[in-house]
Amino acid sequence: MTLVQQPEMHPQRWGDPARAAALPASARGLVELAFGPLAETPAVDPAATPPPPSGLPPALLADLRSRLGAEHVLADDETRRLRTRGKSTPDLLRARAGDLADAPDAVVRPGSHDDVAAVLAWAVEHHVAVVPFGGGTSVTGGLVARREGYAGLVSLDLVRMKRLVTVDRESMTATLEPGLRGPEAEALLAAEGLTLGHFPQSFEHATIGGFAATRSSGQGSAGYGRFDAMVVGLRVATPRGEWRLGSSPANAAGPDLRQLVLGSEGAFGVLTEVTVRVRRAPVEKVHEGWRWPSFAAGADAMRAVVQAGLQPTVLRLSDEHETAINLARPDAIGASEPGCLMIVGFEGEPDAVAARQAAVAALLGSLGGTPLGREQGEAWAHGRFDAPYLRDAMLDVGVLVETMETATWWSRRQEVYDAVRAALVGSLGDGAIVLCHVSHVYETGCSLYFTVAARAGDDPLAQWQEAKAAASDVMTAAGATITHHHAVGTDHKPWLVREIGELGGSVLRAVKADLDPTGVLNPGVLVP
Amino acid sequence: MTLVQQPEMHPQRWGDPARAAALPASARGLVELAFGPLAETPAVDPAATPPPPSGLPPALLADLRSRLGAEHVLADDETRRLRTRGKSTPDLLRARAGDLADAPDAVVRPGSHDDVAAVLAWAVEHHVAVVPFGGGTSVTGGLVARREGYAGLVSLDLVRMKRLVTVDRESMTATLEPGLRGPEAEALLAAEGLTLGHFPQSFEHATIGGFAATRSSGQGSAGYGRFDAMVVGLRVATPRGEWRLGSSPANAAGPDLRQLVLGSEGAFGVLTEVTVRVRRAPVEKVHEGWRWPSFAAGADAMRAVVQAGLQPTVLRLSDEHETAINLARPDAIGASEPGCLMIVGFEGEPDAVAARQAAVAALLGSLGGTPLGREQGEAWAHGRFDAPYLRDAMLDVGVLVETMETATWWSRRQEVYDAVRAALVGSLGDGAIVLCHVSHVYETGCSLYFTVAARAGDDPLAQWQEAKAAASDVMTAAGATITHHHAVGTDHKPWLVREIGELGGSVLRAVKADLDPTGVLNPGVLVP
Repeated sequence: MTLVQQPEMHPQRWGDPARAAALPASARGLVELAFGPLAETPAVDPAATPPPPSGLPPALLADLRSRLGAEHVLADDETRRLRTRGKSTPDLLRARAGDLADAPDAVVRPGSHDDVAAVLAWAVEHHVAVVPFGGGTSVTGGLVARREGYAGLVSLDLVRMKRLVTVDRESMTATLEPGLRGPEAEALLAAEGLTLGHFPQSFEHATIGGFAATRSSGQGSAGYGRFDAMVVGLRVATPRGEWRLGSSPANAAGPDLRQLVLGSEGAFGVLTEVTVRVRRAPVEKVHEGWRWPSFAAGADAMRAVVQAGLQPTVLRLSDEHETAINLARPDAIGASEPGCLMIVGFEGEPDAVAARQAAVAALLGSLGGTPLGREQGEAWAHGRFDAPYLRDAMLDVGVLVETMETATWWSRRQEVYDAVRAALVGSLGDGAIVLCHVSHVYETGCSLYFTVAARAGDDPLAQWQEAKAAASDVMTAAGATITHHHAVGTDHKPWLVREIGELGGSVLRAVKADLDPTGVLNPGVLVP
Repeated sequence: MTLVQQPEMHPQRWGDPARAAALPASARGLVELAFGPLAETPAVDPAATPPPPSGLPPALLADLRSRLGAEHVLADDETRRLRTRGKSTPDLLRARAGDLADAPDAVVRPGSHDDVAAVLAWAVEHHVAVVPFGGGTSVTGGLVARREGYAGLVSLDLVRMKRLVTVDRESMTATLEPGLRGPEAEALLAAEGLTLGHFPQSFEHATIGGFAATRSSGQGSAGYGRFDAMVVGLRVATPRGEWRLGSSPANAAGPDLRQLVLGSEGAFGVLTEVTVRVRRAPVEKVHEGWRWPSFAAGADAMRAVVQAGLQPTVLRLSDEHETAINLARPDAIGASEPGCLMIVGFEGEPDAVAARQAAVAALLGSLGGTPLGREQGEAWAHGRFDAPYLRDAMLDVGVLVETMETATWWSRRQEVYDAVRAALVGSLGDGAIVLCHVSHVYETGCSLYFTVAARAGDDPLAQWQEAKAAASDVMTAAGATITHHHAVGTDHKPWLVREIGELGGSVLRAVKADLDPTGVLNPGVLVP
C-alpha cells in the first residue's frame, strides 16, 4: 500500500497548518470574561525571521553528505526551522517571537539503521551533537539540546524510516520503524486487520520512536496498556554499535534492559526498530458519558472499576472545573455543565463489548453515577486530538495555556490535586483557570492532568516558568511523579533527581557514559 | 498476629526436612524400568563433614559483631552449612557429597535497613564479599559467589526482616520486608483480607526479596502477573547509600529504574523493603482439567485464550511425555494418561469466576478440548509445591533430575521445544526422559519448562553440566531467553551476553561499578 504521510506541523503552532484557526467568535466573549480584554498577540512572520546561519564547518557538512548522500543532508532555513524545538508553551512563545537560536545546523535524514549508525560515527568523529527527531511533539524541551562544546548540532530526522518491517500474526507482534507517525502506523496495521491501540493526544503527529523513547501513554491505556507495556523488542543504534533487545515476552535474565532504553529520550541511543504487541482491529468502539456529583465520587468509582478488574478501554474523568467549561468536548467549549463528566469507552468484539459495558454500567450505577448515553462519549472521541489547536488560538489573544501532568497512588490523589491547584493559582494569581482530569488508571493509582490558562503578562516565558516550577515543587514534595507521560526533556530535569534519588541520577549518568562515551546524543536532555 | 515461620530447609535436600522421603515403593519399579537397576546413592552424613573453618580474620568478625550485635553474627558450622549454596542439582550433588567449600565464613542477620547498611559499610571497609540470602531456593547458582580476592565471604541472611511494614487499602499496596517467605507474607496479608497471588513452585521457602531480585513468576501469573509486574516500590541498601524508587504506578520520568533493580540478584544492592500491588483474597478458587489430542493443539488453544483477553488465573499445559507419567500430579506419578493435560484455574468472586469459567470453556470446547472436570485440576493444585521433593528421592537411587526453562514467541514455540528436547536427549542419551509444560502465557508467547531425568553416570556433575550447556546453547541460538523465571545466577551467566548483547553486558557492568564500586555484592553472580 502507498503510505499517506501526515503533514508537517506548523513551525509556530501545533499540528496541521491547514487546521490552524483563530479563536472561534463564540469563545471570544467567554475568554474576555475570564481574562479581561483580548490582547491580539500575533506571531512574527517566519519569512522575516530566518534562523541564524548554520554553524557547522563546511568540511563536516561535506563529509556527512558523502556518507549519507547529499539529498539527505539539508541545511536550508525552512528545513532547519521545522526541526527547531518542540511544542511546549515556552517552545511556542519563542517560535512566535522569532527566536530560532536553537535551530539545528543541519537536518540529516537516514533511511536505515546503517544510515543512523553512519551519522553517529560521523558525530563521534567530529564531536557534533545529535538530536533524534520523530514527530517534534515534545512538550518538555526534549528537542532543546545543549550545543556548547560541540562542533555543531544536527537534527537526526527519522522521517524516511517508515516501514512496517514484519508482522508475526501468530505471536501478534509487529516490527515498526521509528519514523512512522501514529496514523501512518495504524494505517499499515489496519491493512493487516490489526491495531496498536495507542492514541495519545499527540497521536496525529508523534512517532513510534518517540512513543518508545518517552514512555508514552495513550487515551486507551486502560484497555491497551501504556506504550512501554506494548514494546517487546528494540533495535538501537548507539555510538558503540548496534544493540538488540527482546528475546521473549518476559523473562528473568537479569534486569529488563528494554525498560532502560524505553524512556531514554535519545540520550542512550537511537531506536531504529520497535517491535510491539498488536491486537486485532476492534469491530466495535463505543464511548459513553457518565455524570458524577463530584470529582472525588467519580475518582472513587474509577478506582472501584479498575480494582474489580473491569477496566474498559478508555476511562477518563474531568473535575468540576473542566466539566464546567466542557473541555472534554473542544467542539462545545463553554457550554457549562454541572458535576463531573466521565467518559467510558469499550473496544473489541460486539459481544465482549456488550458484556463489559453491562458489567461496568452496573458497578458505576451502584456507586451513584448517572448514565448520559453515547452522545457525550462520542463527542469526546471525535474531538480527542483537537485541544492543542485551541492553545494556539488562546496565545493569539494573549492568554497562556499549558498542560502538565503527574501520577500518584489512589490514597494521595486528593492531596496531590489540591496541592498542584494551589501552587498554580498561587503563582499565576486568582484569575488563572486550572482544570484537571484523570485519564490513566491503574489498580494502585492514577494520573492527574492539569490544563492551566492565565492572562499573559509582560514576560510570559518567566511567568510560565515560575508557575511550572511551583507546581513541580509540590508534585515532587508530595512524592508524586514529575511526569506521567510527557517525559523529562530539559524542562523536568531539575526535578528528576528528587524522584529517582541521587543514586538514580548517578546510574543514568553511568549508563549514558557507557553507551555514549563522548556524549554526542541529545546532550543536556534527560540525564541529570 | 504471631507469625508462624517456615522451617529451615534440609541442608542436602529441598524443603522441609520433616517431609523428606524415600522414593515411594510404588514408583521404584517404574524408575527401574526407565533407568535400569536402582543404585542407592545416599548422601554423606552431615555430622561427619563440617564446613572448612571460617577464614574471616577474628578482628573483622569482632568488628562486625560490635556493629550488629554479637547474637546476629554467627560462625558456627551448622548455621554456615545451612547458608551454603542453593538447590540446583549441582548444588545438591555437592552437598550430598559433603563438599562445603562454598560455605560462608559467617552468617550475619540484620534486623533493619540500617543494619543492612551497616553490614555493607563494614564489607566495603574490609573488602568482604556479601551474599544476600532470602529463602535459599536458587536453582541457578545465585548463592555461589566468587571469594577469591576478598578478605572473606559472609551470608547476609534476611531471616529477621519479616515485617508487613504498611498496607494502603485504598491504593491496594503493601510494603513488605524482604525476609518474608511466601506463606508468611500470605498469612500477614490474609489477616487483612488480602493476597499477593504469587505462587511459584518455590513458594513455601522463597522470600519476597528473592522474588523481586530474580524477577520471579508464579503459577498464577496469567491472572496475577509476574512478580516484577506486582512491584511498585523498592527500598535498596547499596554500598553508596540508600535508594528509594517508586513515585507512582507508572510514569514517564525517564527509564523505569525499578525494572533495573528487579532482577539484579543482589549484585546492585540489597532490597530492604518491597512495595507490592495486592488484591482482595479470592472468595473462590476453581481448578479444572482439560484434555487435548496434542501439545500443539493445547498450546494453540492457550494462545487463543490469552489473545482473546480471556486469561484465567492459572493456565498450564503438559506435553504428551509429562502427561503420560502424570507429573502434574505428584500424588499419582506413573498413572499413564493419553493426550495432553491442561490445568485451568480461576480465582475471585463467585460470579466473576463463573462468568470467566464459562467464557473460557466455550472457547476451549470450540477448539477441540475435552473437559475433565475439577478432580484433576484440584489434584494439581493440591500437589503443586511437591515436585522438588521427588528430585531428592530420585537422587537417592542414582537418577539425576533437573528442570530448566525458557520463553519464546508463539510462532517459535515448536522450534524451541524440538531443539531443546533434541539437545537434552543428544547429550544424555536415548535413555533420558524429557518432559515439558507451558505454565506462563502472554499475548505474544509462552514459557517452556522442561523436566529432565537420566541415570547418573560416574561423574554426574559433569554429565549434568554438559546437558545443561547443550540445552542452553540451542535456546539462545533460537533467540529464546536463557531463563523465564529461574534467574541468571552463575549457571546461566555464560549465555547472558548472547541474549542481551555485548552492550547489555557492558551496561550491567557500568551500573554495577556505579552502585557497588568495590564489588563486594554477590561477586561473580549475574554481571557478565
